[in-house]
Formats: sequence, structure tokens, C-alpha cells
Amino acid sequence: MGKAEDTRQSIIEGAAVIFNKNGYQRTSMSMLSHSLGLTKGAIYGHFTDKDALAVEAFRHSISQVSRRVSESLTPHGSVLDKLHAFARTFVYFFEDTVREGGCPILNTAVDADDAHPLLHGEVRRVLTAWEGRLIAMVNAGKESGEIRPDTDSELFATTFIALVEGGILLAKTIGDRKYMERSVEGIDLLIKQMAVRRD
Amino acid sequence: MGKAEDTRQSIIEGAAVIFNKNGYQRTSMSMLSHSLGLTKGAIYGHFTDKDALAVEAFRHSISQVSRRVSESLTPHGSVLDKLHAFARTFVYFFEDTVREGGCPILNTAVDADDAHPLLHGEVRRVLTAWEGRLIAMVNAGKESGEIRPDTDSELFATTFIALVEGGILLAKTIGDRKYMERSVEGIDLLIKQMAVRRD
Repeated sequence: MGKAEDTRQSIIEGAAVIFNKNGYQRTSMSMLSHSLGLTKGAIYGHFTDKDALAVEAFRHSISQVSRRVSESLTPHGSVLDKLHAFARTFVYFFEDTVREGGCPILNTAVDADDAHPLLHGEVRRVLTAWEGRLIAMVNAGKESGEIRPDTDSELFATTFIALVEGGILLAKTIGDRKYMERSVEGIDLLIKQMAVRRD
Repeated sequence: MGKAEDTRQSIIEGAAVIFNKNGYQRTSMSMLSHSLGLTKGAIYGHFTDKDALAVEAFRHSISQVSRRVSESLTPHGSVLDKLHAFARTFVYFFEDTVREGGCPILNTAVDADDAHPLLHGEVRRVLTAWEGRLIAMVNAGKESGEIRPDTDSELFATTFIALVEGGILLAKTIGDRKYMERSVEGIDLLIKQMAVRRD
């Protein structure tokens, strides 16, 4: 990477945490400039406006989560094990998530909901992609004979995502990771239910 | 109610929707004054500051949800039917919830998280009370013989709340109530699993 590209990337990474902690609406270019130790002009040299930077920062936050999930899945061969590991990622990285200001999907969905169509569209895209990834995993499990053919993969995907997001909300708000652990335990039960019994 | 009490109540009700739609942080006293058609002085005559009004408005929003839930539960005698009706309330009133700016718990938890300790404490109190209510219902069902004695009532309460909140997040963000319906279908499955089989 060249120096300009380095600077651009470091602005995105720094802004991601600032946006996630303070909310996209409340974060001003002055705050970003102050926190990043750059002039506003330097930031505008890389991004046309706050919205453009907000979208890049959100994408960066999501790519971090995706990377963690992918790393958790790698050691596992079976679809069922991969699904358990997928859910478990959110327990494993719970403290990091809190330190970084909470789940970027949850924060951005609430913060950008009625006021920020570009960012709202990004959150919708990410949620739909997450849903699609889970549905594809369940369908792969049906094909490999691991998952019962009568499993409702859409129902599973929705409950999986809702339990992760609701679990983060509860655990972060009440300040106790046991709510995250219990939510993931709920997902584990759902996965066990759709498994083809080997006994 | 006297006239002063009427005015106070109408400020709370109006402010509840404005806060819920715009977020507590983004809502200014000027916005409230403009939207409610009252001078700032008139509002300050009833509330010492924005925080005091925000707490009353949040409590009002929660009391509305509690009223809807209680009305849904009234016709039912058995604990299992009450639990199904409890969950179903959030599907039934989904459009109202969206019109009023989304779930006040979800919005306030995210918005007030790191920046507003008074309101954050209120959300924590409401979530803990909701959890306690669900645990008490499950325990009552164990005593009446409707619910299996080995049921983990705390696990059920967490997954119930997570599915409701996560379901609202998904359905509102993607703009499709089917995500709320599926989340509640997930709760229905959990309730069926803990029911004592009558066959």
C-alpha cells in the first residue's frame, strides 16, 4: 500500500470504533478530526463527506466480524460443527465487541434507521447476506445428510440472527456476559434439533 | 386530573414518540418544544431537564407495551397459553411499534448505552423485570404441572427476550414483518418443548 492508501485505511479503522461507540448521527467531523489527530481537510482529502466515511467504517467493522467468524469455522469439517462454532464466536469475542462499542449491526440499525438511508441500506444488505449464508449452510447440511430434510432453514436463520443480536443487547445492557452465553445455548439447542440422529 | 397534570401527561406522551423516533441524544428541548407546540419554559415548568423528561417518557413507552401484553394475557387460563400470547403480542402490534419508532427498549439501550447513565439504568431495570416476569411464569407452570420440572427457566427467559428484540431489529431494519413472525415461531417451539406432554 502507498502512503495515501495507508492513511485512508487508518482513518477507516479509527473512525469505525468512534462511529460505533458514539453513533453515526452524533459523531461529527470535528470529533473524528480531533480523535484521529488529523485536520478535517486531511479527512476530506480521502472521503467526500461524513456519510461516505461512515459507510466505509461500517463495512470495515463488518469485515472484522466476518473474519472472526471465518477463523472460527476453519477447523471444522461438518456443517453442524461449523454452525455451533459460528454462534460460539459471539461469546468468544463478546468482551472485544463491548470494548469496540457493541455490535455494529445493532448500533447502526438503530442509529441510522429513520435518518440515514445510505447506511440503513448497508445494514439491510449485511443482515440479508448473513441470513443467506446461514440458509446456504443449512441446505448444505441437508445435502450431506447431516441435517433433517424437513428443517425450515429460513426459520433457523432468523432465530439464529435474532438470538445473537438480542443476546448482545441483553448482555451489553445488563452488563453480564451470561445473557450472551444463554442466547448461544439457545442456538445450540436449535442446531441439535435439526441434526439427523445418529443413534 | 387537574389541568397541570393533564399538561404534564400530554408532554410525556408526545415526548415518548419523539424520543423513540429520533433517539434520546439527538432530541433537543427545542425539537420537543416545536413538536409539542409548547414553549421551552412550559416544558421546564413540569420537568427539571431533558433527562428527567426522557426517563418519564421511556417509562410511559414501557407502560404502553406492558398494557398490551397484559391485555393479550387476560383471556388465557393456562401458563403455556399465556406465554404463547405474550410472544404473539409483538407480532400483533408490530406495525404500531414501527409507527412509534421501534422498540423503546432496543432504541434506548443502544442510544443511551455509554452516554446516559440514568436512562441506561432504566433500560436495565425494565429488562431485568421482564426476565423476572418470564421466570415467574415458567415457575408457576412447573408448580401447576404444565411445564416440565427440568426446564431451565432462566435460559427460556433470555431466549424469549433475545428473540423478541432480535426479531424487531430484523423485521424493522429489513422492512418485513415475516422476521418478527419467524422469531415468535421460534419462541412457540421453545414453549412446546418445555410443555408436559399430555399424550
